[in-house]
Amino acid sequence: MQHFRRLYLASFLLLTSFMYSCDTEKPNVNSENSASTSVEDPLPSWNQGQTKSAITTYVEMVTTSDSPDFIPIKDRIATFDNDGNLWSEQPAYFQLFFAIDRVKTMAADHPEWATEQPFKAVLENDMTELAKQGEHGLLQLVMATHAGNTTEEFKADVQEWIKTAIHPTKKVTYDKLVYQPMLELLQYLRAHDFKTYVVSGGGVDFMRAFVMEIYGIPEEQIIGSRIKTSFEYNNGSPVIKRLPEIEFIDDKEGKPLNIQKIIGKKPVFASGNSDGDLQMMEWTASNEQESFMLYLHHTDEEREWAYDRESHIGKLDQGLDQAIRDGWTVIDMKNDWKVIYPFEK
Amino acid sequence: MQHFRRLYLASFLLLTSFMYSCDTEKPNVNSENSASTSVEDPLPSWNQGQTKSAITTYVEMVTTSDSPDFIPIKDRIATFDNDGNLWSEQPAYFQLFFAIDRVKTMAADHPEWATEQPFKAVLENDMTELAKQGEHGLLQLVMATHAGNTTEEFKADVQEWIKTAIHPTKKVTYDKLVYQPMLELLQYLRAHDFKTYVVSGGGVDFMRAFVMEIYGIPEEQIIGSRIKTSFEYNNGSPVIKRLPEIEFIDDKEGKPLNIQKIIGKKPVFASGNSDGDLQMMEWTASNEQESFMLYLHHTDEEREWAYDRESHIGKLDQGLDQAIRDGWTVIDMKNDWKVIYPFEK
Repeated sequence: MQHFRRLYLASFLLLTSFMYSCDTEKPNVNSENSASTSVEDPLPSWNQGQTKSAITTYVEMVTTSDSPDFIPIKDRIATFDNDGNLWSEQPAYFQLFFAIDRVKTMAADHPEWATEQPFKAVLENDMTELAKQGEHGLLQLVMATHAGNTTEEFKADVQEWIKTAIHPTKKVTYDKLVYQPMLELLQYLRAHDFKTYVVSGGGVDFMRAFVMEIYGIPEEQIIGSRIKTSFEYNNGSPVIKRLPEIEFIDDKEGKPLNIQKIIGKKPVFASGNSDGDLQMMEWTASNEQESFMLYLHHTDEEREWAYDRESHIGKLDQGLDQAIRDGWTVIDMKNDWKVIYPFEK
Repeated sequence: MQHFRRLYLASFLLLTSFMYSCDTEKPNVNSENSASTSVEDPLPSWNQGQTKSAITTYVEMVTTSDSPDFIPIKDRIATFDNDGNLWSEQPAYFQLFFAIDRVKTMAADHPEWATEQPFKAVLENDMTELAKQGEHGLLQLVMATHAGNTTEEFKADVQEWIKTAIHPTKKVTYDKLVYQPMLELLQYLRAHDFKTYVVSGGGVDFMRAFVMEIYGIPEEQIIGSRIKTSFEYNNGSPVIKRLPEIEFIDDKEGKPLNIQKIIGKKPVFASGNSDGDLQMMEWTASNEQESFMLYLHHTDEEREWAYDRESHIGKLDQGLDQAIRDGWTVIDMKNDWKVIYPFEK
């Protein structure tokens, strides 16, 4: 039962997150960003107020060399959740849309899917039936679309998809749905020699296919959920094959565990938006060096979405209580952000 | 049987590798290095010859912007095996000596070890008896000395040990047994914007306790074998506990698999000294960008050790054949290196 629930979670998580832009030569959002950022204000899309000043006060404090709270550059590790924190996650994790679109693309090679669930439901756009397929159905979707190929083939699939896919309600490509204020925050931290990481429940290879261009974060600083892989030879050439089995879920306690495995030291700055980020926040808060915990609260029904304690996606309940109790910084999206998306500038 | 053999390998590997220097404020070998490196010759401890010129020709070729083989900075990933490649590994992996010394240190709290194998053999310095304890005995040693504590406690244990431990035959601390020419190579690559990684069969948390100071490589660029961990609370504070179970062996095909998981792209430069590095070499050789594969051949019985095809530690057999067949560069330690260790300068 526990195992089954884990698979369910796994499928949701693997069907999670990511972002964009495969045209590698075009200027990225990030560099456009830095160009438009005035010297006076590194965070122009943030309204003046407690949230913004908490961030800038912290950064100045820990990067000023004669400050008692000075943090050496090597320890300036900043970790960011992705879905609902660097880009939107409604009405479903964007990676789920990838899986659905992939099923449709792959259907020509799988005539049996016309009569086989959960594929039939996807092909008939029957979301009610798809929901009925539950955890097992979702896991089948993940494995059919995320495994069985090499890492290089999978990357090409994602890159092909991301060029054309359109968000179902916002009617723009998914890469447009990144948060402009967070792009500025990433850039601001890097300008102060922080090493910025994505630490997401989404699939790591999925994100790596296009994250560099939107966030300016290289592949080796993307941490996420993984399926198992094997090293094989294809006509004498080595390939890494993606196997239909979950290896690691990068959510809740998985986040600090993965941070320790891969980065090997505690972050000093952690940013997230859901209860799935709480353990990463606690781990960061336990750093002996002065650390900063930042929660994003989705409060803007008009420009984005408003949800927290009751949401099935990006539930923020315990995390919100703890943030309030421990004095962590909480972004009120509606009031703290001048714009949400870059195209609103 | 396969499983047992794996545990055996695991215990050897976990008992593998690492290095030093816990006095964090003292200038590191690396920076001493760069100070002593003349502007004219970035590799002063390397004799002129084919090996040295193959390295410098490659680096110039891929870092000159108008070269047809130019590699963008983001793709300049260089991976180095550790034991027998960046420092010595004879007469046994240095991490094994840590385990033995730890057993002696911990014995006061474990009176039962006086009569219990394999601990009894260690406490009595009876290496013949220890060898008889075989794979199961070694695994017990690993788990007793590497697990059951938190990541922070383990780090402190290693740092305490490394300050005082003396190599059994060279009679110097282990950090002295790093290869001066390889320190220069690491520095040379970084000066050309390569990101240098350690990718070792040794325990990752073990290496992280002191690698930064000798190699100038930060924790997040150390990849190695791992035991399982769990996220727990100790009086309300989050800790990561080390569990007595192998999670991942970073050797042979484990190296490219871990490189893909953690770095997410193929290296362009790979350096190793044993058959355990062969799959990493092949993976690097399959890079579409111009790549460089470098094997270190231990040929210097007088200044270091001479071993290859028949050695139990650092066996180089298939790898040597493939290097010769595929035209990879092979360092002949005796003839290519002016000095082996920094103290010989």
